Amino acid sequence: AGSYPARFAIFVFAGLNLLFAVLLATPWAAADGQATAPIDAFFQAVSVVCVTGLTVVDMATHWSPFGNAVVMIGVEVGGIGVLTLASLLGMTMARRLGLRQRLMAASDTNPSRVRKGVVKEGQAIRLGEVGGLLRIVALSVLVFEAALIVLLFPRLLLAGKEPLAALYESTYWSIMAFTNSGFMPTVEGLAPYATDPWFLIVLMLGVFTGSLGFPVYFVLLRHLGRPRQWSLHVKLTISVSIMLFLAGGLVYLVLEWGNADSWGTRDFGQQVLHAFFLSSMARSGGFAIDDLGLLHNSSLLVTDMLMFVGGGSASTAGGIKVTTLAILFLAAVAEARGRKSMEAFDRRIPSDVLRLAVSVTLWSATIIATVTVVLLEITGAPLSFVLFDVISAFGTVGLSTGFTHQGLEDSAKVILALTMFAGRIGSVTLAAALAASQKTQLFTRPEERPIVG
Amino acid sequence: AGSYPARFAIFVFAGLNLLFAVLLATPWAAADGQATAPIDAFFQAVSVVCVTGLTVVDMATHWSPFGNAVVMIGVEVGGIGVLTLASLLGMTMARRLGLRQRLMAASDTNPSRVRKGVVKEGQAIRLGEVGGLLRIVALSVLVFEAALIVLLFPRLLLAGKEPLAALYESTYWSIMAFTNSGFMPTVEGLAPYATDPWFLIVLMLGVFTGSLGFPVYFVLLRHLGRPRQWSLHVKLTISVSIMLFLAGGLVYLVLEWGNADSWGTRDFGQQVLHAFFLSSMARSGGFAIDDLGLLHNSSLLVTDMLMFVGGGSASTAGGIKVTTLAILFLAAVAEARGRKSMEAFDRRIPSDVLRLAVSVTLWSATIIATVTVVLLEITGAPLSFVLFDVISAFGTVGLSTGFTHQGLEDSAKVILALTMFAGRIGSVTLAAALAASQKTQLFTRPEERPIVG
Ligand SMILES: [K+]
Ligand SMILES: [K+]
Repeated sequence: AGSYPARFAIFVFAGLNLLFAVLLATPWAAADGQATAPIDAFFQAVSVVCVTGLTVVDMATHWSPFGNAVVMIGVEVGGIGVLTLASLLGMTMARRLGLRQRLMAASDTNPSRVRKGVVKEGQAIRLGEVGGLLRIVALSVLVFEAALIVLLFPRLLLAGKEPLAALYESTYWSIMAFTNSGFMPTVEGLAPYATDPWFLIVLMLGVFTGSLGFPVYFVLLRHLGRPRQWSLHVKLTISVSIMLFLAGGLVYLVLEWGNADSWGTRDFGQQVLHAFFLSSMARSGGFAIDDLGLLHNSSLLVTDMLMFVGGGSASTAGGIKVTTLAILFLAAVAEARGRKSMEAFDRRIPSDVLRLAVSVTLWSATIIATVTVVLLEITGAPLSFVLFDVISAFGTVGLSTGFTHQGLEDSAKVILALTMFAGRIGSVTLAAALAASQKTQLFTRPEERPIVG
Repeated sequence: AGSYPARFAIFVFAGLNLLFAVLLATPWAAADGQATAPIDAFFQAVSVVCVTGLTVVDMATHWSPFGNAVVMIGVEVGGIGVLTLASLLGMTMARRLGLRQRLMAASDTNPSRVRKGVVKEGQAIRLGEVGGLLRIVALSVLVFEAALIVLLFPRLLLAGKEPLAALYESTYWSIMAFTNSGFMPTVEGLAPYATDPWFLIVLMLGVFTGSLGFPVYFVLLRHLGRPRQWSLHVKLTISVSIMLFLAGGLVYLVLEWGNADSWGTRDFGQQVLHAFFLSSMARSGGFAIDDLGLLHNSSLLVTDMLMFVGGGSASTAGGIKVTTLAILFLAAVAEARGRKSMEAFDRRIPSDVLRLAVSVTLWSATIIATVTVVLLEITGAPLSFVLFDVISAFGTVGLSTGFTHQGLEDSAKVILALTMFAGRIGSVTLAAALAASQKTQLFTRPEERPIVG
């Protein structure tokens, strides 16, 4: 019975994807007034609602104003809706409690729990308060996006755009940045801003903030200046995110050094900007300045790893999530040090969290491996390109080597769309569904220890 | 102090590799009487002692009779030595006990423990009994290899070989099969036997048996006809090995269907033979009939996964080991079912085994990813080829897409050789070293649970 909410959420989300597919397939959505091919409309709707950013049509020219409005609304609904859903389910998952307590926002978002142990029933959010939670999420999303618009609008005016175009484009960029969608409003994309720190750094800030996740904002909004009050989840999410951002940027800088096809022969400041821009986009943002197909294969593999990890739990980012990676590494560290428990920031982490992290990682790796094998067989494309786009789809990143394009086989488009859906809804609801089915056993089996490694 | 034996073992094993490098670098070892290039001799020595099978010289023609003897002895010493070492350390690792108990063969190899819990001090093998253990290992290896010679020798006679040549070649094939080394005695390799079920199935049997590992033989020798007496380790190793063999064969059959460059257009019986031969070789055997560079990229990726998993713990096979994979999946299953403990074959598996499995897997994946990124950057070769050969090196499999060859950059040869060494000695000693450093903590930190997934 505990897994009904998770199943219900999956149905609602699937319905949302189909609704947007129908909307985008109508003649009114296309700039040329012709109905978009059903497969392409379906692919693009899933890419929009799952805030992925992969495209099989030219997003800047294909849609009518109505189509563009559908895209922007789809991204917001998909981003915010899943954000809320994931927050609720993430809290469910984080503890194994009764239904009432499942719907409370008190666990990792309430620092009091950190000090005092399990939250009392009275502190739980009632079912009726879900609407309030949704409002908080929607409000914070809009505030963050408004801030990005304020930062981008003057830059676009300075670039010589008409005020109305500048407003539309800055809104589009802001929404796509904060929801980690990665669609671009113009045919030129980021080319006009390829050397502009202002524009690029604002996008990076938007993407990075969006990738932290609702449980993190919730704590930061209340305790921004008091890091001692931050929960373990907040500290882990922020520290691992920053570490991956820095490590990714440095590795790209080294690997692309001297590659004239990418940024490797520009002046040093530009190399740093491009390397760190890609690092911030690889974990889910999905904006790309350069043609990724021209990067070294080594950089593509590094991007694969960053995309696989993704962002924070219950965020607009995908992947296995930074805390999942942290748990796996903390387990290895605890093993190496011979400690009984995993530890981080002076906190002990219960060992059942490791089992959940292993499940999520194994589920993700299995889907990615299976889809990659099938798409390799269907298309015969190179591994580096197929693997990249499959991880990009599963991690809802949206970066592409060029494998995902208009001419891709229809079967491959459908499989990639389902991969995005699985990646977006997958780990969180899977985890919640799993956590909900906890059973008590009345007998104990004898213990035995196999040799591993 | 507990990690000294593990460190000592690593030093001894490294010394063994260097000794064989010196032997193979001498003019006497080469057929043309010229000293082999130091880098090539080093690479080939590591490949021999680590029973890998990757080659940068033509093994069938490059060596003198003395050189071939060195190769065969190296494979036996490397295979048996590491087998013994791994057995001892594996038992160390499997339990966290005192030094005396560490050196006992009673844990997973003694079914009595399964029924009665922890073994008493009196049952432990004393330090002086290590020699006896080594003798049992060496004896069983020689018995298995002799059986393979008996099966292959008449086949080679029937093929028209001179008795002496047939004896040499059947011995060479047998040693290379059981130790999962995969070197071949003749220039033609397996081409003359490419359609011969007798020869190929004998090799498969040898490789499969060798990949099970010493702890399995030990139990089977005593309780072959009584499966109820088998330990959990034996049951897990055998069942997962058979599942992977069957699944791999079926998947290859489907993926290569119709591929004229491999076996996909031959008659059905031959397709089955080739698909299942590759499946059995991919987890560590390393014999190849077909040019693997001509397989579909999808099949190469499937092979990557099989090579990553490898064979049984404390065997001549490499990889993370089948029981490690089993533990990861059992954890996910326990999570899905809401069970408190991982369970298999009516036994409960303690949760600290999961932490060890995660450590081994993470260590392996990290090394493979890092080496692949570095070799991609050095060579600029395609991902499908580089990843394949790196996993092949780490898993001491020895299959190659052609990336590993005479003309490879020297730095890449050295890195691949170190990868083989890390893969062979790595997970087992790492695990043992980790297990040995267990500490007691006198204080307890407050517990806190981050959100994952
Ligand atoms: K995205
Ligand atoms: K091998």
